[in-house]
Amino acid sequence: MKYCNLCGSTVRFEIPAGDNRPRHICNECGEIHYLNPKVVAGCLPVYEDKILLCKRSIEPRVGYWTLPAGFMENGESTRQAAARETLEEANARVSDLQLYTLTSIVPVSQIQLIYLAQLDDLNFSAGDETTDVQLFSEETIPWDELAFQTIRNALRFYFEDRQKGVFPLHHVDLHTPPGQFVEKS
Amino acid sequence: MKYCNLCGSTVRFEIPAGDNRPRHICNECGEIHYLNPKVVAGCLPVYEDKILLCKRSIEPRVGYWTLPAGFMENGESTRQAAARETLEEANARVSDLQLYTLTSIVPVSQIQLIYLAQLDDLNFSAGDETTDVQLFSEETIPWDELAFQTIRNALRFYFEDRQKGVFPLHHVDLHTPPGQFVEKS
Ligand SMILES: [Zn+2]
Ligand SMILES: [Zn+2]
Repeated sequence: MKYCNLCGSTVRFEIPAGDNRPRHICNECGEIHYLNPKVVAGCLPVYEDKILLCKRSIEPRVGYWTLPAGFMENGESTRQAAARETLEEANARVSDLQLYTLTSIVPVSQIQLIYLAQLDDLNFSAGDETTDVQLFSEETIPWDELAFQTIRNALRFYFEDRQKGVFPLHHVDLHTPPGQFVEKS
Repeated sequence: MKYCNLCGSTVRFEIPAGDNRPRHICNECGEIHYLNPKVVAGCLPVYEDKILLCKRSIEPRVGYWTLPAGFMENGESTRQAAARETLEEANARVSDLQLYTLTSIVPVSQIQLIYLAQLDDLNFSAGDETTDVQLFSEETIPWDELAFQTIRNALRFYFEDRQKGVFPLHHVDLHTPPGQFVEKS
């Protein structure tokens, strides 16, 4: 950030009075500009014994498989954001959303919320940012072609929990750069 | 937002190609500026049968009681944010943080996370944004002097759950303006 988005003047980077960390402060109007973590919301859509995954058409990780998820917008709830992303990326409708993973990805200042959800029907298709959408059983999940560590975690949690029949919230903090490249299984 | 914070030029407000809602787009460098919800994290600190509350020294709701909470910063996890706010506002140390309420406050584009936590010791005192810090039992909670609806909800959930001995996640979406003024009990 180099300029104030309210008045267009230059900003300086220093600790405001009464604060304890540096901020971008406008040299003209004095506005303090805060930078805050962004929230990513998505779904783990279940249909019978299968999970819906999307093949990414955009960077990062183009061509790899992921759960439908994306940045939350102003003016919606976390559940609405998760369902909206599922509709946009997979043209898929979901119900019974239950918070399943909450991951702080500290190095990139993101929080990712994944909701366990029931896929309503089989009328899904590739949508925004997606070239293919498919249902995968535990045996066919493309573990070596998953886009992100958080997605791999959510799927692992799910198949473990399914054996026990309970799906508690998984609360994970990632403090080291997770990389976008999952290890080979 | 009137100016691009990267180059200082004016921005227009329109739907970018491939998007479905209007954004602030720089007329000079083309940067698309997204606005996203902010995350508030805090604690419900428990000591024996009592809860720690802070009396606010700042607007909104100066003079009313609240749980220690505040905006999450870049470069920290949600749990670290909750513990940091508790330290800053109440000079209090907490342990065993467990996610207890997740509230989407849709009209103001905020998500609030409150962690149930054990207060480590009685060495607390008024810190930033606070004029007083006290422990309250269920009988002495100042229900008519609580700052926010979300705080009132968290305390109500807690005293109800305590009778059952289980403290599940409470996931609440507030779609109508909650107001900052709780009704009288
Ligand atoms: Zn300014
Ligand atoms: Zn620009």
